[in-house]
Amino acid sequence: MSPQPTPWPRALEWKGGLHLLEQTLLPQEEVWIEISDVDSLIAAIRRLAVRGAPAIGCAAAYGIVLGVRESQTSETWLQRLNQTAQALLKARPTAVNLQTGVRHMLREGEQLANSETSFSEWSPRLLKAAQAFHRQDERLCEAIGRHGAPLLPEGGNILTHCNAGALATGGMGTALAVIYSAFQRGNQLTVFANETRPLLQGARITCWELQRAGIPVTLQCDSAAASAFSQNLIHAVVVGSDRIARNGDVANKIGTYGLAVFAHKHEVPFYVAAPTTTFDFDCPCGDAIPIEEREEQELHSIGLTRIAPEGIQVRNPAFDVTPAHLVTAIITEHGIIRAPNEEKVLAQAGM
Amino acid sequence: MSPQPTPWPRALEWKGGLHLLEQTLLPQEEVWIEISDVDSLIAAIRRLAVRGAPAIGCAAAYGIVLGVRESQTSETWLQRLNQTAQALLKARPTAVNLQTGVRHMLREGEQLANSETSFSEWSPRLLKAAQAFHRQDERLCEAIGRHGAPLLPEGGNILTHCNAGALATGGMGTALAVIYSAFQRGNQLTVFANETRPLLQGARITCWELQRAGIPVTLQCDSAAASAFSQNLIHAVVVGSDRIARNGDVANKIGTYGLAVFAHKHEVPFYVAAPTTTFDFDCPCGDAIPIEEREEQELHSIGLTRIAPEGIQVRNPAFDVTPAHLVTAIITEHGIIRAPNEEKVLAQAGM
Repeated sequence: MSPQPTPWPRALEWKGGLHLLEQTLLPQEEVWIEISDVDSLIAAIRRLAVRGAPAIGCAAAYGIVLGVRESQTSETWLQRLNQTAQALLKARPTAVNLQTGVRHMLREGEQLANSETSFSEWSPRLLKAAQAFHRQDERLCEAIGRHGAPLLPEGGNILTHCNAGALATGGMGTALAVIYSAFQRGNQLTVFANETRPLLQGARITCWELQRAGIPVTLQCDSAAASAFSQNLIHAVVVGSDRIARNGDVANKIGTYGLAVFAHKHEVPFYVAAPTTTFDFDCPCGDAIPIEEREEQELHSIGLTRIAPEGIQVRNPAFDVTPAHLVTAIITEHGIIRAPNEEKVLAQAGM
Repeated sequence: MSPQPTPWPRALEWKGGLHLLEQTLLPQEEVWIEISDVDSLIAAIRRLAVRGAPAIGCAAAYGIVLGVRESQTSETWLQRLNQTAQALLKARPTAVNLQTGVRHMLREGEQLANSETSFSEWSPRLLKAAQAFHRQDERLCEAIGRHGAPLLPEGGNILTHCNAGALATGGMGTALAVIYSAFQRGNQLTVFANETRPLLQGARITCWELQRAGIPVTLQCDSAAASAFSQNLIHAVVVGSDRIARNGDVANKIGTYGLAVFAHKHEVPFYVAAPTTTFDFDCPCGDAIPIEEREEQELHSIGLTRIAPEGIQVRNPAFDVTPAHLVTAIITEHGIIRAPNEEKVLAQAGM
């Protein structure tokens, strides 16, 4: 990775070994943990020490390196490669970037094994492949930031939701890449961050990484967003996405659809920043995107304290769907898709 | 008060003395505390052991009784009456019902002092006045429930926000009075309760009182409301109000305006339930309603745990304003004001 300091934090680094920022301790403590074996990495992914699909993908690529590095023969090396890949794929089976990272490394390993490269070079070459994967994610983020930055109004208040930032990717984020990039170009913007219940990624992580980068940030509870629009406090919205259907419908963290409705009503642009790897061309529209229903415990308790009575029903969808017609533009690594629809989405992806 | 058990809980009762449900312990514990002097009552109001403007008004009326009851002469009685009134008015100076309750009792006390009633009767008569004030609030709630119940769709899912329930009033609530009343008439409705950050009155109090009354309730985080509308899960919205301007604009707990926007977009009726004492005829429209900005601590910490970094800005308005054109109807003790505007609001209040 490039050694120069960045205004945004990193979720992970390779320095003779894999180091992760322990995100569960944010914002109280900034603790880096060293991951020395695959089991520790899987545990870290499961407890959300590293989170955000692109960041998990990068961590998994490095995990393959950890898995093979003590192998003494080419046979144990290949065996360990496949075992590690299988174990990592089970860490969070729904995160598509985890699969992408692991498959990238499996292909590299097979090519090495079938090449004339001497065995002593296999592990160093695999590390280079993991670093290339990480660097590629970093480049996607930079490109999204570069394309999106000119869209943000000068000195405006930019609303974001959840954390689509550096700590969710191998680089400077997706939604927050646009914000970092605009800020670096001298746009004296202010970010409004929704706290993002139930897991508070906005309060805990977005506020922390923006503050660390010197970008002014104002925290509000999710339900305060509507009145921020009616008071003309919001000049643009930028969010990330977990999946984009072929017609441009966008799945993202619960609450995103409501923000799109407010933005439309108050004539504020609503931008979605995501790499084209987020497009699901097999998915015709938002109705076909499966919405994960998460544990009741996230809503009825905070820590060990019960905040709602026992025995009630809980509705806890992790995502909602914003129809394409409410999206002003999708910002990808290739450019801007204004007023997205199926034709434009397919064209952008070169299909 | 009427002795028969109700399906909804009470916030306060007079049984030889003032008893309050200690709401800060809900939903974990249902503890009643006895208040034996005015200082204890003021402390209880300040720490939100009793909350909701109408409930505070009733508690303050009983507080006057507590203040005078050990007086041995008519002079000390009158002195204590005025001292107690002044002390109570400072407990939460912005709650208009607190002033209403205290002034009602001051008028009663002055009438007694100027009448030929023997001194030994003064304190019992003052207690009767407090009970009459409490009963009047109970009747307002019942009337709101009676008028509003037929509006709720049979077997529908009714969304509410914050707690405009029995625990906020001297009776069966305002928004929840409509729900209790419909349920008692056999409407097999289900309530969707927004948790209502930052203080979680929806999760802590609304869920608790509805469950206790046997009404099915589903808890969701505030930002999940939008997707509930888009999935056609919500068939009506009922909320309370803290202040209604002369033109029908409604101030209520932060997040209410957003729900009205969703309801309008998805063609779901949006009802506001409030007694006519909530109307502020001196206030021409919502823009003129002052919006209380509350402490940052409510957003950046949960208990003693910091959830957002130090040094960021916090936006924490307690209320927002819903313009009258998004309100399907206001439900008062006198009836229904459909498509509220200044003319209809003034007519309903007999002005």
